[in-house]
Amino acid sequence: MLDSLPKDKSLAANGCEDKTWKVVASSAAKNCKNYIRDIVDNLALEPNRDKAVIALSLGDPTVYGNLKPSPETVQAILEAVQGGVCNGYGPCVGTDGARKAVANYLSFDGVNFEAKDVILCSGCSSSLDLCVTVLADPNKGHNIIIPKPGFPIYRTLAESLGVEVKTYNLLPEEGWNIDLLHLEAQIDDNTAAIVVNNPSNPCGSVFDESHLKDILEIASKHKIPIIADEIYERLVFPETRFVSAASIDADVPILICGGLAKRFLVPGWRMGWIVIHDPVGAFDPDIRKGLASLSQKTIGSNSLAQGALPAILKLTPQSFYDDLVNILYDNAKLTFEALSNIAGLVPYMPEGTMYMMVKIELEHFPEFHSGLDFMQRLMEEESVFCLPGECFGISEFMRLVITIPSELIQEACNRMSEFCGRYYT
Amino acid sequence: MLDSLPKDKSLAANGCEDKTWKVVASSAAKNCKNYIRDIVDNLALEPNRDKAVIALSLGDPTVYGNLKPSPETVQAILEAVQGGVCNGYGPCVGTDGARKAVANYLSFDGVNFEAKDVILCSGCSSSLDLCVTVLADPNKGHNIIIPKPGFPIYRTLAESLGVEVKTYNLLPEEGWNIDLLHLEAQIDDNTAAIVVNNPSNPCGSVFDESHLKDILEIASKHKIPIIADEIYERLVFPETRFVSAASIDADVPILICGGLAKRFLVPGWRMGWIVIHDPVGAFDPDIRKGLASLSQKTIGSNSLAQGALPAILKLTPQSFYDDLVNILYDNAKLTFEALSNIAGLVPYMPEGTMYMMVKIELEHFPEFHSGLDFMQRLMEEESVFCLPGECFGISEFMRLVITIPSELIQEACNRMSEFCGRYYT
Ligand SMILES: Cc1ncc(COP(=O)(O)O)c(C=O)c1O
Ligand SMILES: Cc1ncc(COP(=O)(O)O)c(C=O)c1O
Repeated sequence: MLDSLPKDKSLAANGCEDKTWKVVASSAAKNCKNYIRDIVDNLALEPNRDKAVIALSLGDPTVYGNLKPSPETVQAILEAVQGGVCNGYGPCVGTDGARKAVANYLSFDGVNFEAKDVILCSGCSSSLDLCVTVLADPNKGHNIIIPKPGFPIYRTLAESLGVEVKTYNLLPEEGWNIDLLHLEAQIDDNTAAIVVNNPSNPCGSVFDESHLKDILEIASKHKIPIIADEIYERLVFPETRFVSAASIDADVPILICGGLAKRFLVPGWRMGWIVIHDPVGAFDPDIRKGLASLSQKTIGSNSLAQGALPAILKLTPQSFYDDLVNILYDNAKLTFEALSNIAGLVPYMPEGTMYMMVKIELEHFPEFHSGLDFMQRLMEEESVFCLPGECFGISEFMRLVITIPSELIQEACNRMSEFCGRYYT
Repeated sequence: MLDSLPKDKSLAANGCEDKTWKVVASSAAKNCKNYIRDIVDNLALEPNRDKAVIALSLGDPTVYGNLKPSPETVQAILEAVQGGVCNGYGPCVGTDGARKAVANYLSFDGVNFEAKDVILCSGCSSSLDLCVTVLADPNKGHNIIIPKPGFPIYRTLAESLGVEVKTYNLLPEEGWNIDLLHLEAQIDDNTAAIVVNNPSNPCGSVFDESHLKDILEIASKHKIPIIADEIYERLVFPETRFVSAASIDADVPILICGGLAKRFLVPGWRMGWIVIHDPVGAFDPDIRKGLASLSQKTIGSNSLAQGALPAILKLTPQSFYDDLVNILYDNAKLTFEALSNIAGLVPYMPEGTMYMMVKIELEHFPEFHSGLDFMQRLMEEESVFCLPGECFGISEFMRLVITIPSELIQEACNRMSEFCGRYYT
């Protein structure tokens, strides 16, 4: 569709009838693909009218109203509005106060960031966009290497820029750790960055310190900077420890991306950040300046959210974070147990985030040609919708969200059980 | 600076000592220039310590606290926060309610927009970024044509994309109307868009209907779509009528950019829009789809501002707009009268916006080599700072803002009078 030209128009008025209106979208627009929607739109998704739809597909924790931002977060933004001094332009990279607040918030495990290391963006997606744009140069034939399965925005951003994308495998049987040999094999002279997403969407996995060290060693050996997507930082279950790539002792420059979307339950506020971790001075001054320059294109992020940021990051009590993690953990256990009892499905217990990956043993469902087919029928018959693994680059998997109320999770699992029971052989 | 490489590091730890860390910023980052800062930073701007600085340079109406958003605007955002349903992700192009509100707000003078014609962005700068990105393709050698003098962001955005920039002249002696012959002469086979900024920053000029018709006729003849930057729409003085490019009866597809920054006095909220005006169907489906695709890169604009938008646009009373315009008009007249009495300065009375252009008759100031030199000395001796015309592409002019309190305007004019009196010959 995108490649079709608009219909010609015959023109009389302007005395220039040999020319026709043909406005074609740029390659930047045509190559900017929504991989989730492309796949989902090609499914014929008609729910069963007798059953209310349960959407296990949306990575938006606010959808069902059961998870709400902390009172401190709400109070902070109300005060930013009422104070009347957060309506004007600020510096494109963010106000000093907000940058300092992020630097403090992320200074733990021996890491010490300063305000100058922080660039505020309109959501973590914008942070990632700036990072890819500053590091990867399509005019030089650069590529970036991204995880598979992985969040599709890395590919969307890179392809829109004309930057080539390569993928490295995550290994389900090894807790979705990176296949390090495969990662290293992808690196070539044109590799501009490795994207590491930890904790992982869609896998729910969390890398331990030793695995992170191994990853950074590869980056160090080949001198490839890392874009660390840590939007799910510290959103890990009780037995698991979150380790930031910045806390590893290594000589690798890293751009860390994060924001308020997940742990603070306000994705719509579009408050994201980039934190520059540069133990070897490799980003100085080129990349620091480049990020600041690029932030000028959109003149920074929402001033009210910036005004509220110091109070949000300082006053949100530990109990809020703990409560959220406990709800997610309970939901994860509930889902895991229920699905473990369903023949033909293999759930992978997450260690954090808001997601769970589930393998579909297609050999036991001869009725279905593919995982996509399975999911389409699950929607048609049971009105339960999960995202196909195809959205993240792998087949025969589906991704469930664990943010919805537990009764709905239970109900969805019951329906999946009946559905699988009907077709399992 | 941006082109320098970071210092090499000798590495011992990783057994790969022949490689060194060289992380160079992409051309997208290096070509993303802030023309205002580049010029201003090269001036040695030391104010006179005995006089408080008066900044007539900042296009931010909120700086001095004399201009405040309407109570309706503040109330609307408070309700968006308190309602608790505006924290999640919305569609990347904006919520239906907010898009519909913008469509209604801009449907006047016979124009009828629908929600589907509106794409919400993070500020008008983002709107412009999307428009340039979707229309101009660097891989095809495209160029865009922008006004001179003009707001420097058009150049910043285009050059970062690798899109060539050409300029057409505005004619000070003809009320800053476009030199139409010059405009037409710039158009070539690679021209992807003409940027028309009306009302104009920095000129404060407002195009009448007949001039707009002439501009659209050229666009129509050569089949070049227009990007109409109408961020100062309806911010015009009592005798002047604002005419939107969309209200002209012509077969020219136009992307209209605007937002809340100026007329609603909340630039920091980063709420902008693109409205698709496409009488010939030239943007269908390619450009419509392209804009929607590109909006996915950053997942849309702030959800609280979107939630507030319908109430802001519907409830802000006409008296608020009138009061703002009257204050600006009074300030413009005050400034114009004061500067008209200063030998060596020629103020150009604006018809709207927040700015006034002033010509510096350098032939009467032999002490100064250039307008930049004049402005630097004005700052050093009188602590009055205006933006040099060079920031907008022309020399021997300066741009003053007329948003600051009138006492300060009066004081600034007095100081300029003394300054010019000392050097005029
Ligand atoms: C791994 C990952 N990175 C980035 C994002 C984008 O976050 P934001 O909403 O702040 O743009 C998401 C959102 O789902 C995500 O899952
Ligand atoms: C002509 C013009 N266009 C666009 C903008 C940017 O507006 P926003 O703050 O909504 O990005 C400005 C801001 O000064 C402007 O003067």
